[in-house]
Amino acid sequence: MGGDFGPPVIVHGVELALKRMSGREVRFLLHGDETRIAAELAKYPAAKAASQIRHTAQVIAGDEKPAQALRRGKGSSMWNAVEAIRAGEADAAVSSGNTGALMAISKLILRMAGGLERPAIVASWPTLRGITALLDVGANIECDAAQLVEFAIMGEAFYCAVHGGPDCHPTVGLLNVGSEDQKGHEEVREAHRLLREGQIELNYHGFVEGNDIAKGTVDVVVTDGFTGNVALKTGEGLARFFVASLKEALGSSLTAKAGAMLAMGGLKKLRAKLEPPGGGPFLGLNGAVVKSHGGANARSFADAIKMAADLASSGYAGQIARNMDRLSIALKQAKEGVETAT
Amino acid sequence: MGGDFGPPVIVHGVELALKRMSGREVRFLLHGDETRIAAELAKYPAAKAASQIRHTAQVIAGDEKPAQALRRGKGSSMWNAVEAIRAGEADAAVSSGNTGALMAISKLILRMAGGLERPAIVASWPTLRGITALLDVGANIECDAAQLVEFAIMGEAFYCAVHGGPDCHPTVGLLNVGSEDQKGHEEVREAHRLLREGQIELNYHGFVEGNDIAKGTVDVVVTDGFTGNVALKTGEGLARFFVASLKEALGSSLTAKAGAMLAMGGLKKLRAKLEPPGGGPFLGLNGAVVKSHGGANARSFADAIKMAADLASSGYAGQIARNMDRLSIALKQAKEGVETAT
Repeated sequence: MGGDFGPPVIVHGVELALKRMSGREVRFLLHGDETRIAAELAKYPAAKAASQIRHTAQVIAGDEKPAQALRRGKGSSMWNAVEAIRAGEADAAVSSGNTGALMAISKLILRMAGGLERPAIVASWPTLRGITALLDVGANIECDAAQLVEFAIMGEAFYCAVHGGPDCHPTVGLLNVGSEDQKGHEEVREAHRLLREGQIELNYHGFVEGNDIAKGTVDVVVTDGFTGNVALKTGEGLARFFVASLKEALGSSLTAKAGAMLAMGGLKKLRAKLEPPGGGPFLGLNGAVVKSHGGANARSFADAIKMAADLASSGYAGQIARNMDRLSIALKQAKEGVETAT
Repeated sequence: MGGDFGPPVIVHGVELALKRMSGREVRFLLHGDETRIAAELAKYPAAKAASQIRHTAQVIAGDEKPAQALRRGKGSSMWNAVEAIRAGEADAAVSSGNTGALMAISKLILRMAGGLERPAIVASWPTLRGITALLDVGANIECDAAQLVEFAIMGEAFYCAVHGGPDCHPTVGLLNVGSEDQKGHEEVREAHRLLREGQIELNYHGFVEGNDIAKGTVDVVVTDGFTGNVALKTGEGLARFFVASLKEALGSSLTAKAGAMLAMGGLKKLRAKLEPPGGGPFLGLNGAVVKSHGGANARSFADAIKMAADLASSGYAGQIARNMDRLSIALKQAKEGVETAT
């Protein structure tokens, strides 16, 4: 029921995701208003065949505060989608509803995995070299050094689960305003020290800067949720600016228009490459929850579904479990470090 | 002598700037190695006619710390360029040397204007609606609410001096991760309250998000130097990614290549629009100092020169002076506010 458009986009997204994942057995529980969902399913035979409707009339509004959502959200479509993971009925949940509410409900129902403190939201960013995972992009506005180290470990596991192959050893960088050790504020300098000197078997590259994201200098870029959210949204705004400027440039004369017609195939590929990532998974929970953009269209909702399916069927949970040892060492070191520093 | 390329780019930049500002009387003092500068001036007659060389053999290295630069920098080319403003020999200084050193030397020699606490670096960002000024992009890694309010006032004055016309009332937004009052960390919430409720006659729009920068939602975007630096460099990286992806897309087939040939004129215009801003002025000083990119080419160094000339010949200093009253009220309010909050 979530997002700016509700069932029409969600159900269409299910249809597109099924086409994209043909050969894989994927089924859906659609939580929400039965009449509205059934009306949409009638238009999409593949989605209809793969889906069951779980009726509820209750929804969480886009402007509801997380605390309100926890108090009043039980039985809502969002709540039931996450609860289905805990109950073992579903392997993953996807929602384009209220982000804060989805985060609060997911934490309450699924709880954090292992020794992890807080979830992080990760965005997969197209780069000159492939994909870079950026986290946190909005769940944690202020982060201490220990949390940044947690993000590095979660980010590595996510990257291998969704974007990596076998023998995956992604490089990890810490976002800063320069590459020298003394740059940045205390939290990043302390996290840098821990990642470099700690007993964490991580392929740590060191500090990276904003331009390294699109350059693809590292596979995983770690930052606090304030900076990451600004970077992600700045990028989304720029992608839209680029597409609009390109259209203007190509419509500026008759010859340019003719050229654009000929170049159409290439330009379409470019446009697909510049689209903002479809899904931002919440990392660190006992279960795969993916937040899709509120303004997502069917294609980008399908991306979010595929991301959720990849996460759920991958070794992500196992990788996190295997990493628990070094994670707890890192956290212990981080905490000692922070206590020494403060 | 600064930047990755030294005199060849700087002197070529002077030549380009003179062409771009034809009709305006602009003259140059070129500080540095006389032999090397003279050799370059021999290639550019216009630059030669408009320039005097001020010889010094001393330079500040790119990796020198600000404190070192202050101790050992006297008599260097950078020092002399800033000192010429104080001595009344120059109206502005432009350098593509070590940013930290330039900032420290400028603060020491020129001092802060009026009641301002710290300088800020401002970047002028192309948007769907024109130009948006973003500050701070790197001078202040951590900022309290009072400083953010200062940036709003400096940014407004800068915008009117360089990008605005007569009757300039630019809109100002505060960068955050959402538009609701309770979003973000304490510093941005407190600055938001001051800008909205304080007796500051500013056209304050409220919170903006990363995507609002390229959208051009407001004329001036205010943020701390860490976030602003990451946003700016993320944007620079994406612009390069976009140009590279466009080239790839247009070279992907023979028809696409033919189309690109036809569309060349439009694409060239686009490329110019996507180039990163040439100069980042330091705001808040008694004098116009513009930092050009270390990797600047002659064209972008010429942009920085033009920016410096515009700042020096505009009413920027006067506007700051006229704003001193509301600035001191704002600062007083900000300080009381911060004390109440802590």
